Amino acid sequence: MRLATRSDGSRDGELVIVSARHDRWVSARGIVPNLQTALDSWDEVAPKLQELDRDLALGKLGEPSAFAELRAPLPRAYEWIDGSAFVQHIELVRRARGAALPDDLLTNPLMYQGGSGCLLGPHDDVPLADEAWGLDFEGEVAVVLGDTPRGLSPSRALDHVRLIVLANDWTLRQLVPAELAKGFGFFVSKPATSFSPLALTPDELGPHFRDGRVQLPLRSFLNGRLVGEPEAGEMHFSFGELIAHAVRTRSLTAGTLLGSGTVSNRDPARGVSCLVEQRTREQLDSGTVTTGYLKPGDRVRIEMLDPTGANLFGSIEQTVVLG
Amino acid sequence: MRLATRSDGSRDGELVIVSARHDRWVSARGIVPNLQTALDSWDEVAPKLQELDRDLALGKLGEPSAFAELRAPLPRAYEWIDGSAFVQHIELVRRARGAALPDDLLTNPLMYQGGSGCLLGPHDDVPLADEAWGLDFEGEVAVVLGDTPRGLSPSRALDHVRLIVLANDWTLRQLVPAELAKGFGFFVSKPATSFSPLALTPDELGPHFRDGRVQLPLRSFLNGRLVGEPEAGEMHFSFGELIAHAVRTRSLTAGTLLGSGTVSNRDPARGVSCLVEQRTREQLDSGTVTTGYLKPGDRVRIEMLDPTGANLFGSIEQTVVLG
Repeated sequence: MRLATRSDGSRDGELVIVSARHDRWVSARGIVPNLQTALDSWDEVAPKLQELDRDLALGKLGEPSAFAELRAPLPRAYEWIDGSAFVQHIELVRRARGAALPDDLLTNPLMYQGGSGCLLGPHDDVPLADEAWGLDFEGEVAVVLGDTPRGLSPSRALDHVRLIVLANDWTLRQLVPAELAKGFGFFVSKPATSFSPLALTPDELGPHFRDGRVQLPLRSFLNGRLVGEPEAGEMHFSFGELIAHAVRTRSLTAGTLLGSGTVSNRDPARGVSCLVEQRTREQLDSGTVTTGYLKPGDRVRIEMLDPTGANLFGSIEQTVVLG
Repeated sequence: MRLATRSDGSRDGELVIVSARHDRWVSARGIVPNLQTALDSWDEVAPKLQELDRDLALGKLGEPSAFAELRAPLPRAYEWIDGSAFVQHIELVRRARGAALPDDLLTNPLMYQGGSGCLLGPHDDVPLADEAWGLDFEGEVAVVLGDTPRGLSPSRALDHVRLIVLANDWTLRQLVPAELAKGFGFFVSKPATSFSPLALTPDELGPHFRDGRVQLPLRSFLNGRLVGEPEAGEMHFSFGELIAHAVRTRSLTAGTLLGSGTVSNRDPARGVSCLVEQRTREQLDSGTVTTGYLKPGDRVRIEMLDPTGANLFGSIEQTVVLG
């Protein structure tokens, strides 16, 4: 199933099921008011949504879709936890700011708790109060969890993945070093995160969701120009391992979002999912950084195509605005 | 008003209004299903709750209260943000682990994003899988916010405080150093946080909520023995300043919880709101730490009395259990 949240004036929006070709959708309001409520009772609700999805596919119901009306699948979520499973990204970014690498980089996932109460939709403008803050994008894959008990093993953890989405974990790079030096992690350096139009059940990815990883390239565009298409399957830690780390000492509630961290590959030819990597590579290659951070008017697009060219999650496509 | 959340089998519980003497309560289910829903439409809902509160006070309705049924006021919240406004605590704790103090300790609040999807109620057992993790309590004051827009000044920020609660921000001390060394802040070192039975509207504190601070001592007991009653008014940063910092680069949604950090005073005679401070003082005074961290069977109680001896928020009173 392809689920999405349409704006209806409520805080949580209205759940819609989207057709395979993305051209039609049907409201799920006869079953649940919104996606969070569906996740709260997934075992009971999912079969009813599947029935609606079948009727949509058969053309028995539905209406033309209007992706401009879409918000984040969960406009407010109970948690947004972001791993950093592409260790290549950590190595590059820390090199850029002269920070040390954790000794247990390859065995102990880096993870931070992000703000989750106000999440941005795929077409929302991204406000930037001060260009000197160094706004950057970070293209990621993320999962939406059902209730996930404390102490799960990585292999059991994947059973709790309900949906898969794309995310843009916006970062204010110039606020990061001072904030991390204080020792408590990111806070003001992470403004609201954005999510893709569609949230897919794992079966929609078929063989492309394998070994707890989405095995497809993530494409990022800046002002219409492709800046990277690294392979999202190159995650060092699988989603199972990230989830198991997240529940080591506490449980997670249904609707928790958990991200992969910036998709990043060792092969520089694959390009980047964030500007700081490009800047670091420029510095390392030529000694001179030519790429600037984002400024008002810049447009960032993030999407993932399957081998047939289908835009699986729809595009996150946003404009930076002064404000 | 004194609000609380009674267990009713639902995820969010049932909102009740509690009498001034805490001996009676009335369900608010005729107005809203739960506290989050009340916060979502506070301006419209609060006057109706006040009317119910008046009828409760007049004895027109209500039933005997049963505090054992109470959960956290928000059993799942959209955000739990914890400041560290008692700089004395930061100085002591960092001294204990040999960590440097931030240069801007007195001008830039330390703040971390905590997990908020599964919060503990005031009488829930506290599971501890491994005693070697060094479980400690942290007694705090916290506020529940309404919708709070990005970029507010400290003076305007206080207008968004809807309720005041107490919290116990449990910490696994022995997991902290390795986790903070990784640079992303606390994660597994912070298991689920606990909250007081009652959430009070600021007017209930009268002159004791002043200058954006709760000006009363916070009392902590370990196994029935008072270990501290530091003055919560000794916050270096006010709640207005903490909120303003939290919304510097993003907005917060209604129902966001924001904590003061561990209540701590310069005067050692006031005792502590966490064991790590006691351990640090022992180390500094005698060179030997005699206080251990918590073990299964230990009971921790946190409460705040007004000058007449009234237990304003009810007590958080929990037992550590192996598990």
